[in-house]
Amino acid sequence: MWRGGAMARLAVAARAFSASASAGGGVAMVQGASRGIGLEFVRQLLRRSDQGRVVATCRAPASAAELQKLKEEHAPGRLTVLPLDVTDESTIEAAAASIAETHGSLDLLINSTGILSIPNVIQPETTLSKVQKSSLLLAYEVNAVGPILVIKHMRPLLKVGGRSETGRGFSLVANMSARVSSIGDNGLGGWHSYRASKTALNQLTKTASVELGRKDNIACILLHPGTVDTDLSRPFQRNVPKDKLFTREFSVQKLLSIIDNVKKSDNGKFFAWDGQEIPW
Amino acid sequence: MWRGGAMARLAVAARAFSASASAGGGVAMVQGASRGIGLEFVRQLLRRSDQGRVVATCRAPASAAELQKLKEEHAPGRLTVLPLDVTDESTIEAAAASIAETHGSLDLLINSTGILSIPNVIQPETTLSKVQKSSLLLAYEVNAVGPILVIKHMRPLLKVGGRSETGRGFSLVANMSARVSSIGDNGLGGWHSYRASKTALNQLTKTASVELGRKDNIACILLHPGTVDTDLSRPFQRNVPKDKLFTREFSVQKLLSIIDNVKKSDNGKFFAWDGQEIPW
Repeated sequence: MWRGGAMARLAVAARAFSASASAGGGVAMVQGASRGIGLEFVRQLLRRSDQGRVVATCRAPASAAELQKLKEEHAPGRLTVLPLDVTDESTIEAAAASIAETHGSLDLLINSTGILSIPNVIQPETTLSKVQKSSLLLAYEVNAVGPILVIKHMRPLLKVGGRSETGRGFSLVANMSARVSSIGDNGLGGWHSYRASKTALNQLTKTASVELGRKDNIACILLHPGTVDTDLSRPFQRNVPKDKLFTREFSVQKLLSIIDNVKKSDNGKFFAWDGQEIPW
Repeated sequence: MWRGGAMARLAVAARAFSASASAGGGVAMVQGASRGIGLEFVRQLLRRSDQGRVVATCRAPASAAELQKLKEEHAPGRLTVLPLDVTDESTIEAAAASIAETHGSLDLLINSTGILSIPNVIQPETTLSKVQKSSLLLAYEVNAVGPILVIKHMRPLLKVGGRSETGRGFSLVANMSARVSSIGDNGLGGWHSYRASKTALNQLTKTASVELGRKDNIACILLHPGTVDTDLSRPFQRNVPKDKLFTREFSVQKLLSIIDNVKKSDNGKFFAWDGQEIPW
């Protein structure tokens, strides 16, 4: 019995060692990963290292065909797909518990969900008279409340992460914002619900960055991906010049380069795809 | 019958003339006027001219003793008190219809409601782990969605207002924001729900200002009243230096001086009580 106990302890230690060794690239979570920019983040994160592990979350993993395909294409354990709906806090808590059990920590969290338009539900407003309370609240719940609740529940995992083997020395939260969230840069008007929700996300991220940067060795940044050819932007691409409409590959490459080079002193900042800071 | 018809027409014309003459000081609406800064705005607006008319709105006029007292103290028609709950859009529409009938226009709209704390309902968060979805949504609904819906429904009245006799030449919307809404100025963190809702209000006001300034000769500004001795700030005054805790009289005096001197080119700006612009 005594030997059995020791062996069991050994096995646990070995598994812990193996987990730690395979974490060379760290553990990255991409929230909102079934399509668009989130999916491309998963793809590129898996491609850039044979060690980094990725947790991809979306509302319905079973029907996320692209994610399931990526999972099959990579070694077991490299990609975990978990259900998470930002409008349902219990699914965020469940995802956090699952990641705690499987990985024990997070080094990078990318919040990539965003709602702009859904036919018959929400549309970017062209004028004040089209502003509806339901749209304002829905955009806020998905684009601002959702990401901050994800940070709230992933915080203990991020606190453990950010180990030196990721080359960063601190954990990082990257929230996908958008240039139209800038109040100072708002010369066109319109898009009330989307703008206000992303502006609020900027404030919530900055607010979290003050506390997490000070207490937990976690930095939080905001990113503007440019106008990217995704389902989200498709109905609004008409007036975008060809050279300003980015592929997902290009945009995510640029954003990952920012993520790779971010310094702790960048905590709380808002960067465009080209590394330029965006005014609030 | 013919003479009766003419007399009736005359009476209508006389009433119209009398209404126009008494509008020397214009028509100002204060939304959220039962107490605090809103109530003080009503008091000072009534005091500064014997002609200006004031529409004060609050959730329950019948129990707004201070407003009812002010009404009795002033000449008939100078103060109208109407029910308006920013979380119930139908009450905003009803108030707009009532003002259209009684006054026909608005020259100034001050949105002064704000929620920061209610025991057992919402509290300014001291840490991310205390952030609750319900608080985020409630603060957003009252502090950001409410005022923008009020502007939406008062817009036709503001469009008619702003006549030269008010000395301004354009109509003005003044939304009460707060310095803690500034993202650039956020060095302390905390107060997530309140901060994010007021930051969103800043963006919504800026967004409206672009359209209303261009199409309707209406300017929109944001105001920071300082820390004022009101029910809203009372639980949080402990750490405020004595000389930074303003009386309502002082703060509103300062804010009215900004409102009096605002230029059309100030459209979309955010001013502190001392006239200094606050960064976004």
